[in-house]
Amino acid sequence: MERVYNFSPGPSQLALPVLEKAQKELLCYGDTGMSVMEMSHRSKMYTDIYDKAVADLRELMNISDEYDVLFLQGGATQQFSAIPLNMMVNKKAAYIDSGNFAHLAAEEGKRYGEVKVVASSRDGNYTHIPDLGALEIDADADYLHITQNNTIYGTRYVELPETNVPLVCDASSMILSEVMDVNKYGVIYAGAQKNIGPSGLCVLIVKRDLLGRAMDICPKLLNWTVQSEKGSMYNTPNTWGIYVAGLTFQWLKSVGGVAEIEKVNKEKAAMLYAFLDESKLFKPTAEKKYRSRMNVTFVTGDADKDAAFVKAAAAEGLVNLKGHRTVGGMRASIYNAMPIEGVEKLVAFMKEFEAKNA
Amino acid sequence: MERVYNFSPGPSQLALPVLEKAQKELLCYGDTGMSVMEMSHRSKMYTDIYDKAVADLRELMNISDEYDVLFLQGGATQQFSAIPLNMMVNKKAAYIDSGNFAHLAAEEGKRYGEVKVVASSRDGNYTHIPDLGALEIDADADYLHITQNNTIYGTRYVELPETNVPLVCDASSMILSEVMDVNKYGVIYAGAQKNIGPSGLCVLIVKRDLLGRAMDICPKLLNWTVQSEKGSMYNTPNTWGIYVAGLTFQWLKSVGGVAEIEKVNKEKAAMLYAFLDESKLFKPTAEKKYRSRMNVTFVTGDADKDAAFVKAAAAEGLVNLKGHRTVGGMRASIYNAMPIEGVEKLVAFMKEFEAKNA
Repeated sequence: MERVYNFSPGPSQLALPVLEKAQKELLCYGDTGMSVMEMSHRSKMYTDIYDKAVADLRELMNISDEYDVLFLQGGATQQFSAIPLNMMVNKKAAYIDSGNFAHLAAEEGKRYGEVKVVASSRDGNYTHIPDLGALEIDADADYLHITQNNTIYGTRYVELPETNVPLVCDASSMILSEVMDVNKYGVIYAGAQKNIGPSGLCVLIVKRDLLGRAMDICPKLLNWTVQSEKGSMYNTPNTWGIYVAGLTFQWLKSVGGVAEIEKVNKEKAAMLYAFLDESKLFKPTAEKKYRSRMNVTFVTGDADKDAAFVKAAAAEGLVNLKGHRTVGGMRASIYNAMPIEGVEKLVAFMKEFEAKNA
Repeated sequence: MERVYNFSPGPSQLALPVLEKAQKELLCYGDTGMSVMEMSHRSKMYTDIYDKAVADLRELMNISDEYDVLFLQGGATQQFSAIPLNMMVNKKAAYIDSGNFAHLAAEEGKRYGEVKVVASSRDGNYTHIPDLGALEIDADADYLHITQNNTIYGTRYVELPETNVPLVCDASSMILSEVMDVNKYGVIYAGAQKNIGPSGLCVLIVKRDLLGRAMDICPKLLNWTVQSEKGSMYNTPNTWGIYVAGLTFQWLKSVGGVAEIEKVNKEKAAMLYAFLDESKLFKPTAEKKYRSRMNVTFVTGDADKDAAFVKAAAAEGLVNLKGHRTVGGMRASIYNAMPIEGVEKLVAFMKEFEAKNA
């Protein structure tokens, strides 16, 4: 069976060299005589894997010592709770609502304090990022939360909001896809299953001066300070997930790092949007200015044609192009691991489909 | 490099056929053209894997429809918080303190309500299970918590406590190693990294009539009812971990199920304890009546000799025999995946070491 081009929004395609290395080492890692899955997380053989993953991520994102890097469990969703539980000292936070997950993050925040949604594109079906001019953020708000790329609606921030409170960013579907200036953030977190590795893992990059503020009711494992003191190992972490994430970081370094992959990502997205802009059948759904480079959403305007396209594409080895259940249509998720050939093949197939169905 | 016999307490040895299947399928699962790590958790190809894992676990443990089976993240430790958050309606619970993790579970419980430690072997260095006669459990306690096998101290319950409140059991280091009557419990939970699969996963078996009671402050992802309604998929679960757990369940069925592996486990433990009881160098540390079949703890009484033994054993491919850092000495963890040949080789080596060092 040939491998397909997998446009899933997550879990999503991994780089082939990463999978090949994981496969080769699965029964026996180096000279250890065991699989990574069988290693004690406190053994030197494993802590070496862990330390290298952290060091490589620091290098790739240019993360200074002012920040701690943690590998946690529960995906980004668990951080929707952990963020207020770790940061709401004044029980007050600001959120920008730019999509489904941004909304869910704010809803969870409300359970632990006062949440003010300072900008929203919910009424516009989230086809754009809200206007960032004149945000009214209370000076004593504990943080401002944003979702920098919206996986479902295919939009991305083109600039960061101006604020004097710590900026907390869900970077799940854009981390490592473009250069980020980490120093502009208080917290960056990301579910791994898009640009990092397998699911069941969440990377947290937190400015150290934000630690030590958890609420009394914060479950121990969700307490960043506890995990920081123990190097993500208050208990057994997702050892396999961290290992595969580490392999992904090594692969990303081998292809030139984040700045290089950003160029490829821009090229992939430009190719797809250029076709969509001239297509007589397919229409892009996100406002041009805010188009995501990771999740490209489009429709034909006819649900039956959408379904026929998704089915026909799958038969050609272009799979998981169906849009999210809440919006319909199509979505091509083209994360770092999607090679440019996959996008070329997709565009060629869309042209072919259009010729027959326009 | 030859594979070693790995006596790690967890993450620990996995059955070789499980690893071989995972390796074979790593680049491409069946005719899907992708790795399990790349599958959308909501795709049919993945939900089939999930459903089979649940069905096989139900079959192996004879779990009735009165119970829900969930695959969660965060290991057993996260459940130390989730248990009070989901069960403490009367803000009152009873715990039996039989070891390090039992103690930590009780400490975490205290953060959410009144915890009464109704029996403890802490003063006796946890070398035995506390006396279960005449437990004073308040009639309105929300539950009684036990740790049925103590990984660090090498002890196990030989009978369950009598109680009228729901029994909550941390079965991390004994689940699937012996037949359990699930109907005697309200909740059974277990970190996966001993008898189930890779780390980053926790199996929760919960009586359905205990759902719907979570506290308002319970983080959404720790809320059993939310996860029950979504079949463990309120967000993306640890898809790879669940897949490998499923392979382990299939392997366990192929060797005859829990009753059969229990016989093998008894035989392995009996072989090791029989040698320890007659050894002139090594002494078992747990009280005879409460000896664990999964974690066999022993010492020479001389820390230098202990260290020399652990080192010499590792050179022979018998690895991770060092005891937990809090107790020292040695510990051989002989979970389901440790073949009887591994224990035979260990005993033979111990005899040899004794002959040279007694």
